[in-house]
Amino acid sequence: MHNFTYYNPVKIVFGRGSIAELPKLLPARAKILLTYGGGSIKQNGVYDQVMAALKGRQVTEFAGIEPNPRYETCMKAVEIVRAEGIDFLLAVGGGSVLDGTKFIAAASVYQGKDPWSILTDWAQVPDDSLPIGCVMTMPATGSEMNNGAVITRESTKEKLFFNSPHGFPKFSILDPETTFTLPPRQTANGVVDAFVHVTEQYLTFPADAALQDRQAEAILQTLVEEGPRALAEPRDYAVRANLMWCATQALNGLICCGVPQDWATHMIGHELTALYGVDHAQSLAIVLPGVLEHQKARKRAKLVQYAGRVWNLHEGDAAIRVDAAIAKTEAFFRSLGVGTRLSDYNIPPEAAEIVAARITKHRMTLGEHKDICQKEVREILELRG
Amino acid sequence: MHNFTYYNPVKIVFGRGSIAELPKLLPARAKILLTYGGGSIKQNGVYDQVMAALKGRQVTEFAGIEPNPRYETCMKAVEIVRAEGIDFLLAVGGGSVLDGTKFIAAASVYQGKDPWSILTDWAQVPDDSLPIGCVMTMPATGSEMNNGAVITRESTKEKLFFNSPHGFPKFSILDPETTFTLPPRQTANGVVDAFVHVTEQYLTFPADAALQDRQAEAILQTLVEEGPRALAEPRDYAVRANLMWCATQALNGLICCGVPQDWATHMIGHELTALYGVDHAQSLAIVLPGVLEHQKARKRAKLVQYAGRVWNLHEGDAAIRVDAAIAKTEAFFRSLGVGTRLSDYNIPPEAAEIVAARITKHRMTLGEHKDICQKEVREILELRG
Repeated sequence: MHNFTYYNPVKIVFGRGSIAELPKLLPARAKILLTYGGGSIKQNGVYDQVMAALKGRQVTEFAGIEPNPRYETCMKAVEIVRAEGIDFLLAVGGGSVLDGTKFIAAASVYQGKDPWSILTDWAQVPDDSLPIGCVMTMPATGSEMNNGAVITRESTKEKLFFNSPHGFPKFSILDPETTFTLPPRQTANGVVDAFVHVTEQYLTFPADAALQDRQAEAILQTLVEEGPRALAEPRDYAVRANLMWCATQALNGLICCGVPQDWATHMIGHELTALYGVDHAQSLAIVLPGVLEHQKARKRAKLVQYAGRVWNLHEGDAAIRVDAAIAKTEAFFRSLGVGTRLSDYNIPPEAAEIVAARITKHRMTLGEHKDICQKEVREILELRG
Repeated sequence: MHNFTYYNPVKIVFGRGSIAELPKLLPARAKILLTYGGGSIKQNGVYDQVMAALKGRQVTEFAGIEPNPRYETCMKAVEIVRAEGIDFLLAVGGGSVLDGTKFIAAASVYQGKDPWSILTDWAQVPDDSLPIGCVMTMPATGSEMNNGAVITRESTKEKLFFNSPHGFPKFSILDPETTFTLPPRQTANGVVDAFVHVTEQYLTFPADAALQDRQAEAILQTLVEEGPRALAEPRDYAVRANLMWCATQALNGLICCGVPQDWATHMIGHELTALYGVDHAQSLAIVLPGVLEHQKARKRAKLVQYAGRVWNLHEGDAAIRVDAAIAKTEAFFRSLGVGTRLSDYNIPPEAAEIVAARITKHRMTLGEHKDICQKEVREILELRG
């Protein structure tokens, strides 16, 4: 097991009716910026619950944070924060709203010249942030219990992430009932996103971390069980609750304690989303099987373990089980209705070359061995035509 | 899944050489009380590492916090804290040292008349605490990542616990190498203690909490695997690291999220320790098989799951598998060298009656159904003669 530091001070308030806890969680006399997305919270009753809980507070609204939240949109909110002396941000929505809000919170108090450098210069860790809270309405990104965010710059089609020690939400309210009305596409995307968050931290090489391995497998097994149920029975509270908790646990810093991490799938996927507009989870469903296939020799020990423990594959020699596990993974994504090929989204084969070049442009060396570069990225995407 | 709140702000610094991180973790200019136990840290080099890291700091030492830390001892430390204006407590040792230090930290700033009421009056949650850090040298109690502590009053032979929202250590340093020299009895005790922490939160009744169940099973499976290895190869870093992380994860508030909890075994065990002086883990090894046997009808669904997933018992009807799982549990404890019968410790059969009466005296109604009272406690212990 590698040495590690684990620290996660987010307070999670989970369950039916938990939005009503808001008044206890917010600082007294805060000037609040309420951020949200395209308005689905107005249709599903979440907005009304939040406004009821905020009664008597000073609240400014900022709507319109889009999926793959844009730098340009966030900077408009930064202007409002500065102009109105906002001192607390409350994000209501999915991971994109929360990610955008994390960036707004950091950029609003950023001392450097250009807040974009928070994303482009990884040495440039924000040295402060306004406090944030959230009401998370879509289990997927895990952003509700971590200190990272992913932001897209529309003008340059760049999708980049940052982490900040100040980026943890003070609290996250998770009410599974708010997810009952999610469209099937978003439900499926959430399952895929959480699943791939886990594989990025698990399908690498053994590191004598028996508990972390099993904690990762626990999430994968539960997603495999509950994902299809959520599509079949969208108003089943227990299923929605399990998915929501899986998504949170998949990316809160726990399962990566002391183990190597990959993240090649995410980095390649971000480029696909930025260039071709596929959903984040769709990009992951395309790329993951390619990364596993391309890297299967080096990931072999963990893939064998994954085959046995997650997919119950115990017959045949190791190579057969590994291939079967990769095939099962892709079939699982497809069973949820998420396409796994570039062609499913009409992305042309040239994407392989274009994305590979951008990985170099962004100075990324990917994978747990930090040696997946332009050539390997091209090869991976060529497997996904 | 029940509604829950999860909050755990402890910073964990884990791995080889991590004691050297102390200077970065301690507040500048703190007046530190360094607390420890019987002096084993002076034999295994931990004391020297800590003192090297504390060079140039204002440090007062308080040694002699015993296993099952005593109220009387802790109150001596409280006097020193008050007299010297101590403002940070650094506990170095096992769970007993840390628990004692948590109580010292709460009692030192306690506003009520008698600090003992922190333990006897559960409504009496301490409203403040001095900050604490710890260097944990024995994986067992999980105290390094929670806000609870157990204290014993020698004069009345009472062993009671308290929780405080202010009781979380600011940081806990876990270096598995500090556990290489633990005596086999303490290694085995640690495995049993962590194991029973998990069963208290897992062997109850199903609550639609698929992930929490698997997270609990992950710890149990790892303890079953690694426990015997630690006794056979005490200087195996990977094994020691896995055990240490299991113990921490077993009682940090994670696996109990949204599920019922039992704790009857602990409460009965505390009385056995207070009255007859058996080690904490020994008391658990005696009581747990009795609680499972006595409650097996009501715990049946979870016991069947436990039989299959932890002990790989899939043959025969459910009743047979449940019995086999309980027998396996007891055999596992015995294989580690921990006695599981009252008679193993020369505790007389009358203990059943005496302990049962004390449960009533302490106004406890135990178990996940809150209905294990005097009669049931007597019956449970009568099974353990």
